[in-house]
Amino acid sequence: MKKQAFIEHRTIMTPGPAEVDPRILQAMTNPIIGQFEPEFLALMDEVMEMGRDVLKTQNRWTYLINGTSRAGIEALLSAVIEPDDRVYVPIFGRFGHLMAEIAKRAKGNVHTTDKPLGSIYTFRELQKEIDSFHPKVVAIVHGESSTGMMQPLEELGEYCRKEGILLIVDAVATLAGAPFETDAWKIDGIAAGSQKCLAAPAGMALVSYNERIETLIAQRRKIEQGLDPKSANPRMMPSNYLDLSQLQEYWGKERLNHHTEATSMLYAMHEALRLTLEEGVNERIKRHATNMNAIIAGLEAMNLTVFGDKDNLLPTIVCVEVPENVELHKIRRELVEEFSLEIAPGFGALKDKVWRIGALGYSSRKRNVLALLTALETVLQRHHANIITGQAVPEAMKSYRH
Amino acid sequence: MKKQAFIEHRTIMTPGPAEVDPRILQAMTNPIIGQFEPEFLALMDEVMEMGRDVLKTQNRWTYLINGTSRAGIEALLSAVIEPDDRVYVPIFGRFGHLMAEIAKRAKGNVHTTDKPLGSIYTFRELQKEIDSFHPKVVAIVHGESSTGMMQPLEELGEYCRKEGILLIVDAVATLAGAPFETDAWKIDGIAAGSQKCLAAPAGMALVSYNERIETLIAQRRKIEQGLDPKSANPRMMPSNYLDLSQLQEYWGKERLNHHTEATSMLYAMHEALRLTLEEGVNERIKRHATNMNAIIAGLEAMNLTVFGDKDNLLPTIVCVEVPENVELHKIRRELVEEFSLEIAPGFGALKDKVWRIGALGYSSRKRNVLALLTALETVLQRHHANIITGQAVPEAMKSYRH
Repeated sequence: MKKQAFIEHRTIMTPGPAEVDPRILQAMTNPIIGQFEPEFLALMDEVMEMGRDVLKTQNRWTYLINGTSRAGIEALLSAVIEPDDRVYVPIFGRFGHLMAEIAKRAKGNVHTTDKPLGSIYTFRELQKEIDSFHPKVVAIVHGESSTGMMQPLEELGEYCRKEGILLIVDAVATLAGAPFETDAWKIDGIAAGSQKCLAAPAGMALVSYNERIETLIAQRRKIEQGLDPKSANPRMMPSNYLDLSQLQEYWGKERLNHHTEATSMLYAMHEALRLTLEEGVNERIKRHATNMNAIIAGLEAMNLTVFGDKDNLLPTIVCVEVPENVELHKIRRELVEEFSLEIAPGFGALKDKVWRIGALGYSSRKRNVLALLTALETVLQRHHANIITGQAVPEAMKSYRH
Repeated sequence: MKKQAFIEHRTIMTPGPAEVDPRILQAMTNPIIGQFEPEFLALMDEVMEMGRDVLKTQNRWTYLINGTSRAGIEALLSAVIEPDDRVYVPIFGRFGHLMAEIAKRAKGNVHTTDKPLGSIYTFRELQKEIDSFHPKVVAIVHGESSTGMMQPLEELGEYCRKEGILLIVDAVATLAGAPFETDAWKIDGIAAGSQKCLAAPAGMALVSYNERIETLIAQRRKIEQGLDPKSANPRMMPSNYLDLSQLQEYWGKERLNHHTEATSMLYAMHEALRLTLEEGVNERIKRHATNMNAIIAGLEAMNLTVFGDKDNLLPTIVCVEVPENVELHKIRRELVEEFSLEIAPGFGALKDKVWRIGALGYSSRKRNVLALLTALETVLQRHHANIITGQAVPEAMKSYRH
């Protein structure tokens, strides 16, 4: 017989899953209620309303997908991309590749460009590609958690709208942790996840889209066969589970039965959005910047090198170069074993070159920042890395005082 | 500012989501840990191992999909169905329609048959269709929660194996609540959910498949573009999120990064499977039968009519006909308002004709059964239904003594 799971508390400074706010864990212990009971529908409506406030949008269609972040990205992309549709994906890290992969599976005619890891696109570069490829859809990552880079979106949104192009954004690494303005930036569709700056467990995606996408979805609408055996549409989406035309009518006033909403995770997201608004979206964004600035001040004081273009760093996740003669995974393991503290390795080409350090949601706390710097300095010193000791924590504290 | 969600405890006697075992809610309050940490990987491995025991299978590939039950069904069907593949779906209720819909979206050449609601197929009927249609895949529901019927699978499994046909089963309404033998019945792929007899919250699907399906999946394997930009396969599956070739390598020893596993829901499923094995799978199945027998004894003593073919009733969910001159939804609302007790309405053609009553997982308790009968009798009496009073609870108690 297996033992009951018992997980010791850890300080989690990775790009996610981040620590969950204890109030969200408490919310999840609410008992089950039927998914069409008025009390549950009211919570769903509140999730939609609070979701709009966090995303800074008036989009009526702002709701949850019962899956992790990429389920939300796939739901959006496969709703707007039909076979042979032209899709441009500017890639600057792993999650751009993911958008391209999803667009290809949706049978889009996908054009991609690449940038050296650690850099982002200028608006002119994007404009040039758009002008020559004439896409129906541009799909782009806002915060690339594989490189620690953030791509500005304002001019791109403006241009796409002017050109009649749909702009779909992956805001998984930025929502509620970096400035993000769905409507002001003219973003048509956006997907984010539960497990980063919203401080909830992984397993839910928040999506939002405007009337332009709603119109497309209406053209591809298909009622489930068990509810209407005659409903047919040759343009229907490839997935039933991620079909936004059905999910829309489940979250909308039709309340058409689709899946059984993940009750406890809905409670979690309700509380996560509520706590975000209680703190204030802008205040939470400021908190992420403050803590990340302190981390960077500390890392640099330690003589470590932050990876990538300094002008476009993510305020939620930073990549830091592994010093010479030090083994990336040995340091990670020792941080866990000695300090119960997690940081993450790199991905792909950066696999052996950087650690990825996040300060997300409930993990974005001064206590965690100082614990990280103390632990990392101690472990690197033990491994004879070429670092400066005794400066990281004082510099971080100085950063907090500014 | 919205208020924190507070849900009052209810007695839930619907086809799901059922009440969650409090020990599972407690397990979900375990803190977050990184998805590739050895402690978390050990829990994933235990989930696979315990999943096999609950499913009565030796299938190596027995793991979770981060989505509700239908995500598991779609993942399986879209893994084995390629465009123009012949798929036979014998429909006997709403969830058969769902399998057909998913198979059509996977671009299968789908043949369906229908039975009057409340009946199931004889093996001869199935055999005849198979012999004339020659499908590659037969997809069938084991427990049809929309009609309360259970379809025997043994002869069908035997025949499909002999004919080289893949048999995919939706065991959402039966797993751990009715006899179910994955290997002995020669089922190739099976999907079930978290929120019924496993007593966990909705939001996770348990899937299992054998080497025959593994071989097909290997032919459609595609490594994610962000991990291997050169990987390509024209036969790749339509979804990245539900791609079993990628999920297999995330749950397998390759540990290839895919989604961020839904940490708290994984804890829930670990505890749900553990509690199922602690009780004993066969003992849990017996408990469901005992409680359902008591419900049916009580309903019939009340002069209510159980819907459908008596020889093939599900031991987990029963449909009961709404008596004349009584309004289905008024009774449901009064049960909630006066007794904090939920039962469910019918679906589709049975929408106004039956209540669906479930006794699933943690909801399958004597206390709940007696509360249901007491409350239903009281409310029906208030509404002048033609029922017999004073007999339901004594008959249910007599049923327990047998």
